[in-house]
Amino acid sequence: MSEAATHDVVGRSVKRGDLLAKVTGSAQFTADFAWPGLLYGRIKRCNVAHARIRRIDASRALALPGVKAVLTHENVPRVLHAGSPHPRSASVTPDQYILDDRVRYWGEGVAAVAATSEEIAEEALELIEVEYEPLPAVFTVEEAADPSSPAIHDRGFGHNLVLAPQVFTRGDIEQGFADADLVIEGEYECGRPTPAYMEPNACACLWDGNGGLTVWSSTQTAFMVRGILAEVLGLPLSKVRVLVDHMGGGFGAKQDLFQHEFLCALLAKQTRRPVRMEFTREETFLGGRTRHPAKIWLKQGFKRDGTLTARQARVVFNSGAYGSHGPGVTIVGTSALVSLFRCDNIHLEGRCVYTNSPIAGAYRGYGVVQTYYALDLQMDEAAERLGMDPLALKLKNAVREGDIAPSGHPIVGHGLEDCIRHGRELVGWPGVRRQGRDEGVVRTGWGMGCEMHGSSAYPGIKEQGNAIVKMNEDGSAVLLTGTAGLGTGAHTALAQIVAEELGVSFERVSCIHGDTDVVPWDIGAFASHTTYMGGRAAQMAAAKVKEQLLERAAKLLECDAAQLDVRQDHVFLRGDPARRLSIAEVVGPRKGIPAAQFVGSATYHPTKSYSFAAHFAQVQVDTETGEVRVLQVVPVHEIGKVIHPVGAAGQIEGGIQQGIGHTLYEDYQIDTKTGRSLNANFVDYKMPLSMDMPEIHTVLLETAPDPGGPYGAKGVGEDPIIAIGPAICNAIFDAIGVRFRHFPIKPEQVLQRLREKRVREGEAA
Amino acid sequence: MSEAATHDVVGRSVKRGDLLAKVTGSAQFTADFAWPGLLYGRIKRCNVAHARIRRIDASRALALPGVKAVLTHENVPRVLHAGSPHPRSASVTPDQYILDDRVRYWGEGVAAVAATSEEIAEEALELIEVEYEPLPAVFTVEEAADPSSPAIHDRGFGHNLVLAPQVFTRGDIEQGFADADLVIEGEYECGRPTPAYMEPNACACLWDGNGGLTVWSSTQTAFMVRGILAEVLGLPLSKVRVLVDHMGGGFGAKQDLFQHEFLCALLAKQTRRPVRMEFTREETFLGGRTRHPAKIWLKQGFKRDGTLTARQARVVFNSGAYGSHGPGVTIVGTSALVSLFRCDNIHLEGRCVYTNSPIAGAYRGYGVVQTYYALDLQMDEAAERLGMDPLALKLKNAVREGDIAPSGHPIVGHGLEDCIRHGRELVGWPGVRRQGRDEGVVRTGWGMGCEMHGSSAYPGIKEQGNAIVKMNEDGSAVLLTGTAGLGTGAHTALAQIVAEELGVSFERVSCIHGDTDVVPWDIGAFASHTTYMGGRAAQMAAAKVKEQLLERAAKLLECDAAQLDVRQDHVFLRGDPARRLSIAEVVGPRKGIPAAQFVGSATYHPTKSYSFAAHFAQVQVDTETGEVRVLQVVPVHEIGKVIHPVGAAGQIEGGIQQGIGHTLYEDYQIDTKTGRSLNANFVDYKMPLSMDMPEIHTVLLETAPDPGGPYGAKGVGEDPIIAIGPAICNAIFDAIGVRFRHFPIKPEQVLQRLREKRVREGEAA
Repeated sequence: MSEAATHDVVGRSVKRGDLLAKVTGSAQFTADFAWPGLLYGRIKRCNVAHARIRRIDASRALALPGVKAVLTHENVPRVLHAGSPHPRSASVTPDQYILDDRVRYWGEGVAAVAATSEEIAEEALELIEVEYEPLPAVFTVEEAADPSSPAIHDRGFGHNLVLAPQVFTRGDIEQGFADADLVIEGEYECGRPTPAYMEPNACACLWDGNGGLTVWSSTQTAFMVRGILAEVLGLPLSKVRVLVDHMGGGFGAKQDLFQHEFLCALLAKQTRRPVRMEFTREETFLGGRTRHPAKIWLKQGFKRDGTLTARQARVVFNSGAYGSHGPGVTIVGTSALVSLFRCDNIHLEGRCVYTNSPIAGAYRGYGVVQTYYALDLQMDEAAERLGMDPLALKLKNAVREGDIAPSGHPIVGHGLEDCIRHGRELVGWPGVRRQGRDEGVVRTGWGMGCEMHGSSAYPGIKEQGNAIVKMNEDGSAVLLTGTAGLGTGAHTALAQIVAEELGVSFERVSCIHGDTDVVPWDIGAFASHTTYMGGRAAQMAAAKVKEQLLERAAKLLECDAAQLDVRQDHVFLRGDPARRLSIAEVVGPRKGIPAAQFVGSATYHPTKSYSFAAHFAQVQVDTETGEVRVLQVVPVHEIGKVIHPVGAAGQIEGGIQQGIGHTLYEDYQIDTKTGRSLNANFVDYKMPLSMDMPEIHTVLLETAPDPGGPYGAKGVGEDPIIAIGPAICNAIFDAIGVRFRHFPIKPEQVLQRLREKRVREGEAA
Repeated sequence: MSEAATHDVVGRSVKRGDLLAKVTGSAQFTADFAWPGLLYGRIKRCNVAHARIRRIDASRALALPGVKAVLTHENVPRVLHAGSPHPRSASVTPDQYILDDRVRYWGEGVAAVAATSEEIAEEALELIEVEYEPLPAVFTVEEAADPSSPAIHDRGFGHNLVLAPQVFTRGDIEQGFADADLVIEGEYECGRPTPAYMEPNACACLWDGNGGLTVWSSTQTAFMVRGILAEVLGLPLSKVRVLVDHMGGGFGAKQDLFQHEFLCALLAKQTRRPVRMEFTREETFLGGRTRHPAKIWLKQGFKRDGTLTARQARVVFNSGAYGSHGPGVTIVGTSALVSLFRCDNIHLEGRCVYTNSPIAGAYRGYGVVQTYYALDLQMDEAAERLGMDPLALKLKNAVREGDIAPSGHPIVGHGLEDCIRHGRELVGWPGVRRQGRDEGVVRTGWGMGCEMHGSSAYPGIKEQGNAIVKMNEDGSAVLLTGTAGLGTGAHTALAQIVAEELGVSFERVSCIHGDTDVVPWDIGAFASHTTYMGGRAAQMAAAKVKEQLLERAAKLLECDAAQLDVRQDHVFLRGDPARRLSIAEVVGPRKGIPAAQFVGSATYHPTKSYSFAAHFAQVQVDTETGEVRVLQVVPVHEIGKVIHPVGAAGQIEGGIQQGIGHTLYEDYQIDTKTGRSLNANFVDYKMPLSMDMPEIHTVLLETAPDPGGPYGAKGVGEDPIIAIGPAICNAIFDAIGVRFRHFPIKPEQVLQRLREKRVREGEAA
């Protein structure tokens, strides 16, 4: 690896490789897939929350001209599979059929149609007759846990449990509380936001004459889609090709295998024609994945000086009708509470419960959004009770070098402290705090929230990034990577890393991705690890090409390869840079010697690196309307070496926008009697618009680069969505002296709590 | 490499990977390319043989509704380029413009149109007005060589010479002839067959929003198309992606870069829409490539016992209007005469001449068809004069182990002798010979022809095969190869080689090819080297994967990797095969260890290997109609290890069919006054049909495997088209006692020569 102190490509906000394609509209998304003879697939969804299908009759639909196939549970393979098919995870939950004779939530698919137009397919859905035998339904985790409630699945982890309760302990919790001067406890509750990606789920399938299946899908985990489709359809991996080019977002939720992907493949098989399916916006709610609604009971003990003595938590995640990522979210979200703020005595218990609700899945933050929301809020509450500045309390307890992270790995550096301190100076904390001193109708306040998040899901030998790099005869290079491009610019970052390592200009590196037949295996784009893990593998593969390049150059320059370096498209003698050749001259054909074909491949088993952030937010609360506006955010992130500053800042701004959404607006709701979805559209499901966005002054620290990451880079994908919620919530308290222990915080709740406060204060007066 | 004495996959006629796709019609060819907004491109071709364009007016065409663009020489880049852009060849001929203000043969393109339908494009061609200023035209090599004739190009190799005369000498030619007891000379002439591939040339182009060009093209040389398009259009290689999936034949002629490929790219650029172009059948004649018509003056000296003492030749190839493969064909075709039959004193001179005729290019046999036709026929003539059996004469002089081949490499083994001897026994030679004894209307005879042909065009460091092999987590494997699949089954052979080397079943190996962005560089499918060179590279890459596989297996089986072998999808301990694991068990995830991702890549610099054949043909001549029928052929080939027997036999049968075609039927003709094409269709250009085919009893010897080829394999692609012509011609002599020194041999010529013979015999009597 090049250990040059300065970099030519890495650290620069180069023009994204996909920029012009996206700006001009020429970028191809899955729904753009077109082919002669294309059929349009649609899914019929149930309108009951829990029922057995007594009868399903597709005959009228099949009789409709233009309808080519109808699938129901009666004519699809009955294979139990997991929605989140991580081939390496110990905690997958095989609890789904492609189509079942039973439905478990309102909106679940019961049949699928392929027809010559979308209109005909739509009409055919109406002609499919379904008779349901209703079953009692449960929607809350409390109802589901009641032994008298119906079992939603017949599985062995206890009544409606997605997995066995997960317990994480450290030290002696009883002693910890006994040693405390202050014990504080509370229940925190998180709503049901959905990722609401711009590009609805889409899939197109085509079978070739040799029994091979090609699947275009908007997925973050192409190799997982390949694996589970191959398994369920009984094909070898070499017969399933999954393709995905551009994507309009995923945010974790597109790392499940969905009903429509199976159904699209089966419709294409039955009709022997290409079939395309695209969700309507409503279906992205009904058939998509939400964040896990959660309840976190949290209790902590403190010494008078702020030292944490004990932490106890019981976390319950609502998985909805299927397990999906419930196990992973439960483990990651619950175990996250061993860290962020140091504590020697810990007892955590995490549960995940089936209900007859929409399916919760992976969503940016992966359980940690919920638990760190509770933790950070309670630190703020404790600071008040201890009479301390909340920043000082958090700084005192912030994890640091050598502390053990949730993954069991020791923390590298002092990232969290660095972020808190840097932000403190920048915003002028604590001077900016209002501490409820504002008195007008519109009051302002500042709050701060903290987070840490790991890159790579399964550190060590369980995980791997892979890459192949080849160099063309003109010295341009191609990276073959299995990483997915959700729209984050990750492939730009990877190309930068390859360009830097090879010493070629960024424009001369192209990136091939999204074709499981072609690129090396990748676990998928999640866990903030694409740049970290895929980038490191790309760097290692490029280094192997560089080695071959320097060897050839050494022959041409008549020197030893060890004397050579390569930068800015030229190979040169260290100490005598005038003795040089362009890379094209080295690689290209020369008299009697052909152009070279250099290929390098590499596998990288990552460690786990942690990124840190402190978000400082200023809010304004209208005490007459209850409206909360975020005025400005100063997000200070420590993510190691920054490969593409604008790209990293973009991730942070987007995370803040989503975080504002779930903190103040977003909650996908179902009717508590019928389970019917109430706001599966963008009118009733309110997301922050550009005019709701605050000013954001992003700060990227590079104080704790990770030795395992490419050039010291760490992940940034998930981090920015975690700390913004607590920062806002703490800022609201700073503005109006009212604490909330849930999200989203709606205006009517703000008004209600202000009224209660006034009543209390009136009573006290 | 595995040195196992027996093979599991190699040598078996496995089911071709593309079989079902082709049989069911689902295989995608370039002309199947469809895309929303597709435009249809057509080329306007000139109707003069040689002229300057005085005026070209596209305004009426552009005014036609649906016409989106018209290109003429006035609005395309003026870059001189070679039609055969071998990046490593010393002898490319940059003599073409995309569109020129001068046309050099009847049918050359002068303008191109893109329109919303093929019909509109066709109509628009008629509306383009062109005024020509005619120039004197020359059609024969003699006319062209006349210093008073017009220069077709302004280039520096002498009047209308495509390249400087090529001279090959050995020993002392004068002494050789002085030592001869018999000197024989004659002029031999070869017509103008065209490859007449089933799939007409086709191309489709699409520019992405980032200025990148994607080209689907039916080409044998995707990387050459990429290279020259990039150069002429001023793009880096990483911005040009050339794709080709299935092909319906090429036979060498699709290894040029054609006018339509440039025009298609430029039309797509100008219209910002995808554009597709497909040749009509007529255009495959007008815009395609033919074999080089040739005249070979050949003189040889023999001792009474048949020993060759001298060989002298002057070969003139007619290149047509452009150079294309003229240099290569001249060098390869002429220098071939140093070999086949041993001779110490040789003087050969090869020329290639421009004429105002259709462009000659690469075509199966690449100049050798013509020169070995002359050589073998003259050996038969000499045998008659010497009173020897022609087989005995050829066997006596056959090249053998250690002799120097045309490439300068020593011959390995005794392939030619083996083929002659084996065939002799099989057909019962010389007993079957008729020697003109038949007397009825229909007479039969046997003849034999010999050939040798090298695999790989530029042996040694100048040439390379490349491959990448990756293994999936279920133990299936993927080969990434730049080799092209013309329909020969080469990718099946390559997958067999990978399967054999990895020890996995053939069905578990898939082959990715035809995407220049993805696969490693390849020179293209020609020179009979795909299996030989690409196959060896694939074997080497697979061996690297195997090494990683065995290392991992050794850990699991707790032994040394050197003790292990892998066959039939299992890794086992040599000597204790019960201690074994399936490959999937080795590669797939295990408790705590993830699935592995093994990748291997390799570059192979080939030597030159020679394959040999003797064809024995029985013909029947109808002395009343002059019709010649080939009754049976016994082709005996020595091609080293046979990877896929049915595939190799298919190559041989197809070559014999094409050889019968050019020997008896096929000749693309132009009017000798105007240069107008006379038979550019399958009614007037007669090819052998299935009912014209003889019985073929193919014999594949494996007596001289090549140490450089995969498992000892050598090439077979070009061989079978070479010896069949002389075999038929010699058989005609055996049947009716008449010798021909040209092809094709038409019935009217047979009748004419029979009449002359009768007159001579009458005079003699």
